Amino acid sequence: MYEIYVAARFEAAHRLVGNFGPAARTHGHTYRMEVILRGQHLEEDGTLYDIGKLGQAVEGLAGSMHYRNLNEVPGLTEVNTTAEAVAAYCWEKLAQPLRGEGLDSLTVRIWESPDAYAAREDSLA
Amino acid sequence: MYEIYVAARFEAAHRLVGNFGPAARTHGHTYRMEVILRGQHLEEDGTLYDIGKLGQAVEGLAGSMHYRNLNEVPGLTEVNTTAEAVAAYCWEKLAQPLRGEGLDSLTVRIWESPDAYAAREDSLA
Amino acid sequence: MYEIYVAARFEAAHRLVGNFGPAARTHGHTYRMEVILRGQHLEEDGTLYDIGKLGQAVEGLAGSMHYRNLNEVPGLTEVNTTAEAVAAYCWEKLAQPLRGEGLDSLTVRIWESPDAYAAREDSLA
Repeated sequence: MYEIYVAARFEAAHRLVGNFGPAARTHGHTYRMEVILRGQHLEEDGTLYDIGKLGQAVEGLAGSMHYRNLNEVPGLTEVNTTAEAVAAYCWEKLAQPLRGEGLDSLTVRIWESPDAYAAREDSLA
Repeated sequence: MYEIYVAARFEAAHRLVGNFGPAARTHGHTYRMEVILRGQHLEEDGTLYDIGKLGQAVEGLAGSMHYRNLNEVPGLTEVNTTAEAVAAYCWEKLAQPLRGEGLDSLTVRIWESPDAYAAREDSLA
Repeated sequence: MYEIYVAARFEAAHRLVGNFGPAARTHGHTYRMEVILRGQHLEEDGTLYDIGKLGQAVEGLAGSMHYRNLNEVPGLTEVNTTAEAVAAYCWEKLAQPLRGEGLDSLTVRIWESPDAYAAREDSLA
């Protein structure tokens, strides 16, 4: 099995709704998004998937949340913007063009700090 | 599948028993403990599990080994204090309150340096 | 399940053949190689596998590519030196002496920069 990994950063505000202590106040993080793509076979050119293309998609997605309040980003307004929910949102956005490419699975990790992340991993089949 | 991750540090002495060269002398490390919790479903509040609660358990466990000789910590006196054994010890301590919460698996990684770790991963079911 | 991890660095030149934009020019990276070994059971001395022995193998392999052009390294001259192909090459080199030792699987990650890697993971059985 092969995998490729790319990462990007974005700085965003958010607040949680519910019993989350100080995290219920609007605050923010320097988020780090890590994206891992898995598959069984390499292409003839020695790649699993075009990492430039993947990197562009990841940078584009990070850019769409950069210097924004996540609670106001379309697709996140109806959910609690936990790192888990942001990972699920990013997973759906990135998975769409990756389906039907013979790839196995996709992981998206959302780091809120160097000591905490949440991730979603699921099959692309 | 979702996962959440928290990390903590502790500084401890230890020595290995057996044919371990200089590691048979009492020495020490700035240990880093990384803890990953996995499950299939998010709670209604958008979390897999209360990361504050997990963080407290991890910090408490790290604190119980901080500035100690691991060879004298109850639960580690009977084993060789390899990173594998410390990971297994921490896994058991952390797993106990996590069982029966609908979670899938738990990983504990014990870094002895930025270039080496050992980990234990097992099902919580 | 247990795992152990060691890492090493090497600085090497390479060029890709094909439609890879500026990566088709000879350039180079400070590569980081991360190696993860997995198995079900610890030895009586509390180790999964002798991490000193694994570390020596990883350092030796990294050293054999250090300050070289990967496109001229025997075993890599016939392939496109993508990070995927370098990971596959290193996997084969490291796996050989690890088979038949009761271990489950081996992962080799090749980082070309702190923001991108490719990895190969496969069973050792």
